[in-house]
Amino acid sequence: MKLYSYWRSTTSYRVRIALNLKGLSYDYCPVDLVAGEQSSDPYTALNPGKGVPTLLLEDGTALTQSLAIIDYLEAIAPEPQLLPAQPLLRARVQAAAHTIAMDIHPVNNLRVMTYLKSQMGMDSAGQTAWFHHWMTEGFTAYQALLPGGTRFSFADTPTLADICLVPQLYNAHRWGVDMIRFPRLLEIEKHALSLAAFDQARPENQPDAS
Amino acid sequence: MKLYSYWRSTTSYRVRIALNLKGLSYDYCPVDLVAGEQSSDPYTALNPGKGVPTLLLEDGTALTQSLAIIDYLEAIAPEPQLLPAQPLLRARVQAAAHTIAMDIHPVNNLRVMTYLKSQMGMDSAGQTAWFHHWMTEGFTAYQALLPGGTRFSFADTPTLADICLVPQLYNAHRWGVDMIRFPRLLEIEKHALSLAAFDQARPENQPDAS
Repeated sequence: MKLYSYWRSTTSYRVRIALNLKGLSYDYCPVDLVAGEQSSDPYTALNPGKGVPTLLLEDGTALTQSLAIIDYLEAIAPEPQLLPAQPLLRARVQAAAHTIAMDIHPVNNLRVMTYLKSQMGMDSAGQTAWFHHWMTEGFTAYQALLPGGTRFSFADTPTLADICLVPQLYNAHRWGVDMIRFPRLLEIEKHALSLAAFDQARPENQPDAS
Repeated sequence: MKLYSYWRSTTSYRVRIALNLKGLSYDYCPVDLVAGEQSSDPYTALNPGKGVPTLLLEDGTALTQSLAIIDYLEAIAPEPQLLPAQPLLRARVQAAAHTIAMDIHPVNNLRVMTYLKSQMGMDSAGQTAWFHHWMTEGFTAYQALLPGGTRFSFADTPTLADICLVPQLYNAHRWGVDMIRFPRLLEIEKHALSLAAFDQARPENQPDAS
């Protein structure tokens, strides 16, 4: 399998973690989002959404959208399980994952920031305020959804929720979000990054890190 | 079950369609997003994300995030199946669903538009341009992901992809997006709205429609 990825992309980071947790090996194909490589014709033929990640399977099938890719990985390599089998708990883990994946990430995405800068003249202070606002709102909701008493968000092993959370925390640190109200999230992050699967997926450990 | 919903919310609309397709009855509890009811204390106790929909189960459990709720409905009422069983096709349907749910909807959400207006002074023309931009980009990607030759997006019966698409098309019409490049999406919409499950879930058919 080939993973088209950008080192700082939090959605690429999610899929890297899932591949590592499942013990699936892959070739790393960097896509430079800042240089606009995601909009090139060969790449958009693979991924019409002009985003990362894309997982290219051995038979040439291209899979897009990080959570859809992870769902596929869960089907072909069920262990370790990233979503509980029990429907109610499964829905809760997904709700937390989606709080990151739908309420924070899309709004803070590079394409949105580019629009805000180029079309609306948003300055650097405005960008920081924007980032902080959506992350703080989203982390507040995420933390309120957690049951408590577990090493990771919902269990003593990582689930899809942690796979979405940890990359977003990377962004939070990068943008200087005040994390004083989110001690539980920082504890989860510490536990996660002590695992090789998470550590090896970190942006700074990717071949295209700069 | 009680569904906390706002008539024009496209995420509420998704869950209404899924409940109807599965033949599950529910009480409709309106949450007036424009009046800010989603930020009241009693409601945020149910849904810390301050959004709709919330599905309140008989035992008092509150489920949040539309796609997590639909995943739960799929588990407790498997027929008709909204996601194919075959992992690759399942991933493709989800990728299309997420193109709407992650690349379009969160960016055009009421909370984001409120921020753009109140914090950045975005005017009415700016809002329309913003809506059109993200919908046109997202619909282009969505349409490119479709196999073709089916009545709905991926099959002759509706899947999760159609459940995300049709509510977003409601928004597209409301905001006057030029749909000339998306004939396939309009065909799918016509087929979907001919089904009672979709028709009864339409915003204008909700008790809080105004």
